[in-house]
Amino acid sequence: MPDILAPDNVGLVTAQTHKFTTPLALDCGRSLPSYELIYETYGTLNEHHSNAILICHALSSDHHAAGYYSMQDKKPGWWDTCIGPGKPIDTNRFFVVSLNNLGGCKGSTGPKSINPDTNKPYGPDFPIVTVRDWVKSQARLADVLGISQWAAVIGGSLGGMQALQWAIDYPKHLRHCVVIAAAPKLTAQNIAFNEVARQAILSDPDFHTGHYYQQNTVPRRGLMLARMLGHITYLSDDAMRKKFGRELREGKINFGFEVEFQVESYLRYQGTSFVEHFDANTYLLMTKALDYFDPASEHNNNLSAALAKVAAKFLVISFTSDWRFSPSRSREIVKGLLHNKKNVSYAEIKAQEGHDAFLMPIPHYLRIFKNYMQQIEDEE
Amino acid sequence: MPDILAPDNVGLVTAQTHKFTTPLALDCGRSLPSYELIYETYGTLNEHHSNAILICHALSSDHHAAGYYSMQDKKPGWWDTCIGPGKPIDTNRFFVVSLNNLGGCKGSTGPKSINPDTNKPYGPDFPIVTVRDWVKSQARLADVLGISQWAAVIGGSLGGMQALQWAIDYPKHLRHCVVIAAAPKLTAQNIAFNEVARQAILSDPDFHTGHYYQQNTVPRRGLMLARMLGHITYLSDDAMRKKFGRELREGKINFGFEVEFQVESYLRYQGTSFVEHFDANTYLLMTKALDYFDPASEHNNNLSAALAKVAAKFLVISFTSDWRFSPSRSREIVKGLLHNKKNVSYAEIKAQEGHDAFLMPIPHYLRIFKNYMQQIEDEE
Repeated sequence: MPDILAPDNVGLVTAQTHKFTTPLALDCGRSLPSYELIYETYGTLNEHHSNAILICHALSSDHHAAGYYSMQDKKPGWWDTCIGPGKPIDTNRFFVVSLNNLGGCKGSTGPKSINPDTNKPYGPDFPIVTVRDWVKSQARLADVLGISQWAAVIGGSLGGMQALQWAIDYPKHLRHCVVIAAAPKLTAQNIAFNEVARQAILSDPDFHTGHYYQQNTVPRRGLMLARMLGHITYLSDDAMRKKFGRELREGKINFGFEVEFQVESYLRYQGTSFVEHFDANTYLLMTKALDYFDPASEHNNNLSAALAKVAAKFLVISFTSDWRFSPSRSREIVKGLLHNKKNVSYAEIKAQEGHDAFLMPIPHYLRIFKNYMQQIEDEE
Repeated sequence: MPDILAPDNVGLVTAQTHKFTTPLALDCGRSLPSYELIYETYGTLNEHHSNAILICHALSSDHHAAGYYSMQDKKPGWWDTCIGPGKPIDTNRFFVVSLNNLGGCKGSTGPKSINPDTNKPYGPDFPIVTVRDWVKSQARLADVLGISQWAAVIGGSLGGMQALQWAIDYPKHLRHCVVIAAAPKLTAQNIAFNEVARQAILSDPDFHTGHYYQQNTVPRRGLMLARMLGHITYLSDDAMRKKFGRELREGKINFGFEVEFQVESYLRYQGTSFVEHFDANTYLLMTKALDYFDPASEHNNNLSAALAKVAAKFLVISFTSDWRFSPSRSREIVKGLLHNKKNVSYAEIKAQEGHDAFLMPIPHYLRIFKNYMQQIEDEE
């Protein structure tokens, strides 16, 4: 797609895979004897290995965070807005690592992968993974890359939860923690949306209790519904109004169940295209990781207690129109940190884009993000 | 269920059915040659037929608004909180009429009914009906009952939209219009939720393009998902938090896809029980009636213009935590009325119950509602 690469683009990138052969004990009580993680890197690791940044991805995302795989690519990586030369996560200064999480469907070991015990895809037998499990697996990747301390661990949404878990579980292994559009745990409403999405997949006759790979089917309907529903929660009411209003696709009401309003057309497109490149078993796992995330639960539901030992400096960012993880959820994290007299910067960005705002080129957001990241460089 | 009937209950009731044999021309361009409407009445019509009140129902509701069918009934009608001797809609004073809308599945002609042309159920061939069509059919029921002017037309949610349409289409046929927890039209987000619910039903393999009656199947999965999703939008985030929090059904995480959180259990129960007593084709019709409702669209999207000729006095009520039809949506109606110097009372009730608040015994709400209704009596 790009005729020439913009100077602030990381350019053409390739993914790498590392196979881990030491068993990984998981929160669920099971253990993965071996597994692969696929990842990309942008920028150059410095001599002291002190300029590394870990990017943690959200629900349906992957390791391809910036750049292009080829000049024919239609779109760059999912966070190209924020990663590149001169961008907030400046690849002239930082060595950026972005991976696909365990349980994923983009190259890291997950339900689609072959279970060495059975020589068949894991499918529903892939163990349930938690945010803590992911962070543990990411720490092993850091070892492989020779990174004993991240300059920063950064993530939006579910990615922000991983960043927070890093600060809790490995306080000495990161200097900065950037938590964007996240929450310290899901609300009942958040869980409820996930549950409807899961039921859509689980009840699809083509799901075959998760063994659909062998049946040569895909639970398209269920995954499509899950994605459509997700998209409603990613956009704000205002953003939807601006984007679609009540506009009719053919300018008039047809009195039928075909697409009539533009918003219906958008959702169906998002739903059907998602099915082409995402795996339903992975979607189920990711929603469960979200539901279970609750670091305060091990401290009598006291978030301050959970954050007592963090050592990283924090940047917490929220967006005013985000109703999936509203600013008040980010403020819970900020409060928990301040209660412990931790170093935390907090920005509540006025934005109409809803939860998706963390992916968008909103000038005020990028400026604050960039300023914070520049200050990190100054410390070295 | 009731051992004895409470003195403020309308008691045992029976439904009646009227068959209309004059064709009804519908907004979609088609016409129903004949149809039945099922309805209940509570209280006594006075000599001048001036004390009649019409209750319009919401999405998944019906004509059974108050009282019990038998002493074995577990629950009274859906608005028993508001209808009865001494209640806001006081059956000592008013003659209350409550019907099941055309297209419904509780006794009025709808997709489940036999199409006289084919001797098979209408199924998906039942015409799409609009709020305006309903109001037209309700006006015919008024004629049958000898009611030339309602003392009030009252409804919550989609029922409120019907009340509003009454005031617009038949200004001289009602003295008061009570619009509760409604909106002058759906937002893109509202339509989006309806679209996901519809896709859940339409894509269920047991839907058989709507001809599932002949296949002896029911699109259970789709209708269940639609209902689960609906319930999320009926409750506020706060109400869900209060009701369920993050409570685990068995007190611990099981790392699986069975019900774990209480909120999941609640939603699955709501979904599965709904399937037992509601029809999927009707659900589709009701959501379309919601999507299409937009009286301002015939007046260059000017709601004030649409309301210019209303003659009824209005009570508009909204609830602070209602995010399906938030108070700002009710205020649009109020503004449109005030712009025309119409008589309107508006109450924004502080309540945590979300959209469902209009069905609940919230003291402040019932008091305001009752005071307004008492004033109606004083006028006669």
